[in-house]
Parts: sequence; structure tokens; C-alpha cells
Amino acid sequence: MKPHKSTAETRFGMIKSRHTESFQHALNIGRMDTPIISLCEYISKTNNYYTTSSCSGRIILLDMQGNEKDKRESLFHFKKHEFVQFEEIWKSLNEKTQGTVWFKMDSFILHLGTDSLENAEKIIQSMKKAGIKRGGIMVAKEGKFLTEFQGTQTISLPVKEKNTILIEQKYLKHVVEIANQKLEKNLRQLERLEKEIKKTLK
Amino acid sequence: MKPHKSTAETRFGMIKSRHTESFQHALNIGRMDTPIISLCEYISKTNNYYTTSSCSGRIILLDMQGNEKDKRESLFHFKKHEFVQFEEIWKSLNEKTQGTVWFKMDSFILHLGTDSLENAEKIIQSMKKAGIKRGGIMVAKEGKFLTEFQGTQTISLPVKEKNTILIEQKYLKHVVEIANQKLEKNLRQLERLEKEIKKTLK
Repeated sequence: MKPHKSTAETRFGMIKSRHTESFQHALNIGRMDTPIISLCEYISKTNNYYTTSSCSGRIILLDMQGNEKDKRESLFHFKKHEFVQFEEIWKSLNEKTQGTVWFKMDSFILHLGTDSLENAEKIIQSMKKAGIKRGGIMVAKEGKFLTEFQGTQTISLPVKEKNTILIEQKYLKHVVEIANQKLEKNLRQLERLEKEIKKTLK
Repeated sequence: MKPHKSTAETRFGMIKSRHTESFQHALNIGRMDTPIISLCEYISKTNNYYTTSSCSGRIILLDMQGNEKDKRESLFHFKKHEFVQFEEIWKSLNEKTQGTVWFKMDSFILHLGTDSLENAEKIIQSMKKAGIKRGGIMVAKEGKFLTEFQGTQTISLPVKEKNTILIEQKYLKHVVEIANQKLEKNLRQLERLEKEIKKTLK
């Protein structure tokens, strides 16, 4: 049974204010990644959109223990949303770890919710104008449309197996340099997205 | 101006038969990746769905020349949709290349089109039931809904810069082994997807 429009509107208002509160809370306790705050703040002030979760992009050492499908069995041994130094990665890698350790550069990821297909399409338009190729509408229900989009810059390689480091320092230095370059590109892509979103979503 | 339903239906029929022809042509000239043929054949026989492009997953050496955003400037120096041997990768890596060479394992990617939001939602449901986390509706227009989804198994690392190989043979052997394991997992995910699609899309 379809709800009356007013019920749908009320429900959307409730969802939006719940997510806006979560965002404000994350912001207050310093759990938001700096490069994505301004975009999320803008979205929280629009009438028809909210963010459910976001990451501005990061460089990590992931300690995969057991079944890699189960994220609960993986540990962020190192995580930073800004440029990294070779020395801190090398130091962290030499600390005690459990399973297979992966060095990764992950692009930004953003989840945006809205109330209608028409408004969800506007998100996709902004995304395309910003040159972002990965993402789309993930949930399409009456009154609840959730979108996800993600940058495409990525590095992902195994660097330690049990307690043996698999790569040479020189190679890791090179990889760290490329990871920083990719993070920089990722941040520029995020800025472009913010610009397009501000033009399109109101 | 919205088209009459009959016009939209005619248009959808035309789009679907055009894509079905492309698929049949690719199949006939041997350009379809074997592990995804059965799924694409099933889809081509449904009433409401078609595939626009697909890849079953692959292991590649990508020679990035110049601006990496521009795929035209990148060359597939090596490409295979099945398990690889260390020796063939090593041999290929030692051949002449131009720019930065990346070793990559890419997951499957599938583009499915349909005629309505309701039918697009069914695709998303199959995807979720098959445990596929990445993807969604990328185009949402009257009579034309395009979805994309992709596996999440991935490896991506630089292995050669201009003419210098950056990694040791021993490490590459290890990486090739992991890439094969990931390709195997990717194929199992694809099988699971095929099963769910056959249950849901008719």
C-alpha cells in the first residue's frame, strides 16, 4: 500500500533529521574526514538530501585475518585520510600483525539519500558532470532513494604475510609516492564533485 | 513530453533487439568471455532485460602512457580472462613497454538495461541476494534504466617504470598466486549472481 504523500513527506523528514543529527554528532566528536566536511555540511542544509556515510579517501594497512569477506576479521593496522610519509608506513608495517597485510589507497565514497527518483537523478547528473564513473542508485523505494558513488583512484597490494615483509623498502617508497599522488587526484575529484553538487542540488 | 506507452514499448523493443544483436555478434566472433556467456544468453532471452557490455573478470598488465585518466593512452600489454602462470606474466613484463606498467586483477563488470524502475529494482535485488555490494542504477530515464554492477575482488600495483622492473620475481610469483585466487572467488561470485538473476528476472 502506498502511503499518502503527507505520510511519505513526514517519514522523509524524520529520516533526514536523524541522519543530519548523526552527521552533526560525528562532526562534533571529530570523526568526520576534513576534506569531505564542507560537502556534507552543504548537503545537510538542502531540503531534499542527506548523507548516510562518507569517506574522503584514505591510505591504509589492512591486516586480513581469516576470511577476507568478513570485514570484522580485518583490522585497520594503519589509517590516514591525508598524505603519508614512507617512514610512518614502514614503522607501522614492522609492528606486530596477524594475517596478510595489504597496503591500499582507497578513493572517496559517499552515500546520499533523497525522497524521489527525480531528485536521485539530479545526484547522478552531478556525479557525471564531475567525471565520476562509479556509482548509482542502490535503493529505490517509495520515498527512499539511496545513492552511492566512489572515486576510481586505487592501489591494492599484499605487503606482509604472517610476519614476513614481502617487498623491498625501495619499492614501498615508490608505492607510497604513487599513493600520495592518487590521494591528491582523489581530493581534486572530490572538490569537483562538491562544485557540481552545489550547482545542481538545492 | 512523455511518450505514449506503446511508443515507449516500441522504443524499448528496438533498444533490446539492437543490444541482443550486438551480443550475438560478439558471441559469434568469439569476443565474449566464456564465464559470462551463459548469464548474458539468459538475459538476452528475457522479455524486459538486455546486456550492453560485460567482462567476466581479468588479469592484466596495463601500460599507462601519459594521462592515466585517458584510457586511449593506456595499452593492454597482457590480458587474460582465466588463470595465469607466473612465467607468462614475467615474460610479458620483460617485453618492451612504454610508460608505467600496472599489474591488475579486475573483477567482473556487467551492464544491464531494462524498461522500468520496477524492473531495475529486480536487478538490484538479485545483485544484493548474490552478495554483490558495488553497483546500482546509473541511468534512470522514462523507458530506459541502465544498471551496472561489479565484483569487489581487486589487486592493483605498479610493476614497471619506463624500462625498469620494480619488483622481485619472488614477490610477483606471490602476487600472481593471489590474483588467481581472487579470480576464482570472482568467478564463484559471478555464478552466484547468475543463479539469483535466473530466479528473479524472467
